[in-house]
Amino acid sequence: MLFVVTVRIGVIGVGVMGADHARKLDAQVAGAAVTAIADFDEQKAKAVAAEMRAATVAADSFELIGSADVDAVVIASRDSTHAELALAAIAAGKPVMCEKPLAPTAAECRTVVDAEAARGIGLVSLGFMRRFDPAYVELKRRITAEELGDVLVAHAVSRTVTSGPGGDSAATITNSAIHELDVMPWLLGSPITAVSWHSGRSSRHSEFRQDPQIMLLRTESEILITVEIFLNARYGYDTRCEVVGELGAAALTTPAAVVVDRDRRRSVAYPADWIPRYSDAYRLELQEWVDAIVQGRPSTLATAPDGLRASLVADALVESMNNGSMTVRVSGTFAGQ
Amino acid sequence: MLFVVTVRIGVIGVGVMGADHARKLDAQVAGAAVTAIADFDEQKAKAVAAEMRAATVAADSFELIGSADVDAVVIASRDSTHAELALAAIAAGKPVMCEKPLAPTAAECRTVVDAEAARGIGLVSLGFMRRFDPAYVELKRRITAEELGDVLVAHAVSRTVTSGPGGDSAATITNSAIHELDVMPWLLGSPITAVSWHSGRSSRHSEFRQDPQIMLLRTESEILITVEIFLNARYGYDTRCEVVGELGAAALTTPAAVVVDRDRRRSVAYPADWIPRYSDAYRLELQEWVDAIVQGRPSTLATAPDGLRASLVADALVESMNNGSMTVRVSGTFAGQ
Amino acid sequence: MLFVVTVRIGVIGVGVMGADHARKLDAQVAGAAVTAIADFDEQKAKAVAAEMRAATVAADSFELIGSADVDAVVIASRDSTHAELALAAIAAGKPVMCEKPLAPTAAECRTVVDAEAARGIGLVSLGFMRRFDPAYVELKRRITAEELGDVLVAHAVSRTVTSGPGGDSAATITNSAIHELDVMPWLLGSPITAVSWHSGRSSRHSEFRQDPQIMLLRTESEILITVEIFLNARYGYDTRCEVVGELGAAALTTPAAVVVDRDRRRSVAYPADWIPRYSDAYRLELQEWVDAIVQGRPSTLATAPDGLRASLVADALVESMNNGSMTVRVSGTFAGQ
Amino acid sequence: MLFVVTVRIGVIGVGVMGADHARKLDAQVAGAAVTAIADFDEQKAKAVAAEMRAATVAADSFELIGSADVDAVVIASRDSTHAELALAAIAAGKPVMCEKPLAPTAAECRTVVDAEAARGIGLVSLGFMRRFDPAYVELKRRITAEELGDVLVAHAVSRTVTSGPGGDSAATITNSAIHELDVMPWLLGSPITAVSWHSGRSSRHSEFRQDPQIMLLRTESEILITVEIFLNARYGYDTRCEVVGELGAAALTTPAAVVVDRDRRRSVAYPADWIPRYSDAYRLELQEWVDAIVQGRPSTLATAPDGLRASLVADALVESMNNGSMTVRVSGTFAGQ
Repeated sequence: MLFVVTVRIGVIGVGVMGADHARKLDAQVAGAAVTAIADFDEQKAKAVAAEMRAATVAADSFELIGSADVDAVVIASRDSTHAELALAAIAAGKPVMCEKPLAPTAAECRTVVDAEAARGIGLVSLGFMRRFDPAYVELKRRITAEELGDVLVAHAVSRTVTSGPGGDSAATITNSAIHELDVMPWLLGSPITAVSWHSGRSSRHSEFRQDPQIMLLRTESEILITVEIFLNARYGYDTRCEVVGELGAAALTTPAAVVVDRDRRRSVAYPADWIPRYSDAYRLELQEWVDAIVQGRPSTLATAPDGLRASLVADALVESMNNGSMTVRVSGTFAGQ
Repeated sequence: MLFVVTVRIGVIGVGVMGADHARKLDAQVAGAAVTAIADFDEQKAKAVAAEMRAATVAADSFELIGSADVDAVVIASRDSTHAELALAAIAAGKPVMCEKPLAPTAAECRTVVDAEAARGIGLVSLGFMRRFDPAYVELKRRITAEELGDVLVAHAVSRTVTSGPGGDSAATITNSAIHELDVMPWLLGSPITAVSWHSGRSSRHSEFRQDPQIMLLRTESEILITVEIFLNARYGYDTRCEVVGELGAAALTTPAAVVVDRDRRRSVAYPADWIPRYSDAYRLELQEWVDAIVQGRPSTLATAPDGLRASLVADALVESMNNGSMTVRVSGTFAGQ
Repeated sequence: MLFVVTVRIGVIGVGVMGADHARKLDAQVAGAAVTAIADFDEQKAKAVAAEMRAATVAADSFELIGSADVDAVVIASRDSTHAELALAAIAAGKPVMCEKPLAPTAAECRTVVDAEAARGIGLVSLGFMRRFDPAYVELKRRITAEELGDVLVAHAVSRTVTSGPGGDSAATITNSAIHELDVMPWLLGSPITAVSWHSGRSSRHSEFRQDPQIMLLRTESEILITVEIFLNARYGYDTRCEVVGELGAAALTTPAAVVVDRDRRRSVAYPADWIPRYSDAYRLELQEWVDAIVQGRPSTLATAPDGLRASLVADALVESMNNGSMTVRVSGTFAGQ
Repeated sequence: MLFVVTVRIGVIGVGVMGADHARKLDAQVAGAAVTAIADFDEQKAKAVAAEMRAATVAADSFELIGSADVDAVVIASRDSTHAELALAAIAAGKPVMCEKPLAPTAAECRTVVDAEAARGIGLVSLGFMRRFDPAYVELKRRITAEELGDVLVAHAVSRTVTSGPGGDSAATITNSAIHELDVMPWLLGSPITAVSWHSGRSSRHSEFRQDPQIMLLRTESEILITVEIFLNARYGYDTRCEVVGELGAAALTTPAAVVVDRDRRRSVAYPADWIPRYSDAYRLELQEWVDAIVQGRPSTLATAPDGLRASLVADALVESMNNGSMTVRVSGTFAGQ
């Protein structure tokens, strides 16, 4: 047995997402170990800690961040806590991987961006995992290799089985569409500069929010993007993306390993939620985050300014929603851009 | 050999489309024979007539319409001639199958609708062949059978290899998008009441028109439809349509009979143009048109009012195009609706 | 209305297959009309005749064949009657389209081949409709165009929902596998010269026959073909064919016009039986048969010698089945080859 | 930084396969580090060692196996060395992951099986990585869940771009088909008891071996399996597997993340070799191997007896090949079964 350098990670928030991160970091990522868990539900924290190779339960999130046994922090607690905890990690000088969104509002995002800039080093990585999804990566590779020629339009669709309880129409934008608002500029190599939001019939399975929603996004490079977000699509968890260029088009396939013939149908299965769909993306994202820490270099994950940028686009969409689907320009300059 | 009743058909205009109609009517449709051909290019008329079992070349379109050897007329000449020729056929009391569009402007369409209404019987059928495409028919069957629950949004994409020479941005709407403007209301069972038109980067392979174009359509039933028309898509002739409902979604597949593995790729072929893609649709449309004539009943093809309706939606899109992508309501009432 | 030359067709046997032929000939084929129907079930004959434009019910099959109102004959009655009726049509000098198989035994097939040869003209066409299926035609086109290089192996699969009542293991070969025994040599351009028959577990849904069955066929050109025939596959009617060459492979796709997303599945539908799967093939086959009669030329349908050839291969497979899966050479020479 | 228990691994043979294992173990597997490399090509050994976090180059394979800095051994050297090195690892009492095959002959495999049995603990794991491929795992899950009913037949196809230089027809069986001989019994839950080997035309791109080859395998449970191995298939690296049961069928899909529309084609890409196709399988296999070592339990990888079993089936196939495709029973009993 060898004793080698290992990044000691504290995980704050072990709901579905945080527990999955903790398990991946401890059991599937090279060079890392989860050493501390914090959750307002102590039983849950204990249960997840017991699954780890060598983790203890922290009294609270701030104790975890400050702990001498924690080299780096994962924030997977409620959205409203993200900014405050990220600021604490920055203050402690520890690398932090914060689940999206960086904060529920652009204003709060800005405090983190500013704090990080003041500190002078990039400590904050954001969990926009699609950037590590092998399918998106392959799509970007083909765009970059100019297989499609200059990109002209793109179509994105995000559908989930159910929106779950609570949440209004704006939450669809800030919490779900936010993935598109990050990944499309990353994919197309150009920020979003103008948006409009559109709605028609809403599903009776959606109580409090317009569902589905249609959005038009325009990049600085004048690519027009249509986006459909449909949270109560019921049939399955389904992310689609097609990019259309001057020479051709490329799209994500429906990921499926097995096709079944039964009952007069040839079919592939949809996952019920994002966990299996993005399992590889999360693992690769966490591996890159750990590798970057070990090697003392910036990670290739989304940054705090990326998070602010996505948040500003989301704000513009909410403004369009509240103003008769008018076209809204995304507010542009900020520290860190 | 038996001598049975056969509908004698005159075909006006034997370019790519008209020649294809003539061949199908004479060689693949039961109960019909092409007996007369008219085309301003007499050599072309003669060549196509020679392929028919028993056709002569008419001196001109009006002679053809008036000929005692012609029971019914197909109009496949230039768009600008459609209305005039349709009016002549109505005046002659002969059933007419007019290629889309009924006329380049809604105003002209209206003259045909009014003339037909004055005559008191439905003589005009329109060549919106997608209504007979087995794939669209199957899609409509599933919607009608409520397999998807109430429809909420739909996505349509029409791509062609090249726009050919000439034509401006408005022509994309009135000549190409027009298929979507007819088929989507037919598919969804509700007329289009409001539209907006959007554009971004345009392909350098398109000289005189914005290409691609994005359109948002709203049906009376509040279904929101996104439409992409991309005439210089180059990679192939490709029609897509997805309908999303409360319980599920359904879409046209890429039609392909054979899949080939070669050169590190698994691929299916795209057709170069609409002829192979809609070959079955044209044949079935023509068979239904002939059957209806033989049986003395209205055909199930699109009607003159349908043509006017599509034209009014096209006009609204052109208005949006000329007015900063603003939302335009489709002008509503007309004779024959 | 015009009176044009029309082939008057008598249809013998109007079960599922014969009634479908009658309907297609009368309503979807140019230049043909069904004028006589014969069936041992007179009610059924009357019902189908009533659907035709101008058909009467014949007293029996032989009266139909001899009728002055019948120019050509379709045989779609029981397999055991095919040879006798084909002989009568040959004797009457009338073109005949006989459903497969030409006869249940090679010996009977030979009587038809010989009678036709004695007559000196090709009167018999066989209903091996796969030769007209657009997918098989496309597959053959790609082979002929040498897209795949020299063909080395092929894989064929025929699955149906249920075998229906009755029938033994040999019937699977002579009645179902017979389609493969005709289409594969046609596709690959080389006759089958040796075969072996293999079996393992049999489905409990098959009472009296081994099901599925695996066959190995070898063409004169040394292409090795695996065949699976599974009649009680239950999940759907499914024909598959893959051809593998030195440069690549090509295969039939699963034909489907619409894909549906529902209940955690993305699926396309299988037909319940062969009628929808081969609807186009039947129509095109019948059109070609009628065209050839009108034009006084041999049709491109399978011939009586083709039927005998397939039957000899079937006999060799039955011999292998009865002799421990040994390899059996197909008996080679016969009149008409 | 934390110091945690880590399995120190020595890798013997760093050709394409071994270098890939070393990289995955050191950079993508939790709880492992590569500490020693041996290769007869010292430059190559040094280069790969330099990529590791903390590895040295061993003088030779036996020094590596005996090294105090090596807890467990990966054997990825030439096939002919596998048995000898595995025996050395067993003698050293160290867990060993040996690439397939365990040995080129069943007799040599048996020496390893016996040596391990004599030692009394399971030290040998075999790199039959398909057992860890998520697609095969999903296929097995569906079989086990009885979604397909009792399995009746199966079809396997393994195609590669080129066979590379050297190798005869027997090598196709012992080196390539061997994967099918391991994975099909694992998938179907029943050992192979009888086989036959078949050949037809051979590709002109194959100099010294029959290519493609067709095999029929029969399991103890009487499932009949067709196998095609085609090493010079040229078009791509392609593994297919379909399992057909009483209620339905299930098959591996063509793995592809992105579909591209260009040049009149809609296509997905094939990999050039097995590395990308089975990248996940290798990683998961290595992680399980390491986890089992850390937890002191037998891994779920294939065992030495599994390797012997596959080798005995391969021998039977070679016997069939050398004896006119006769059916050969697999020799059955051995220590460790």
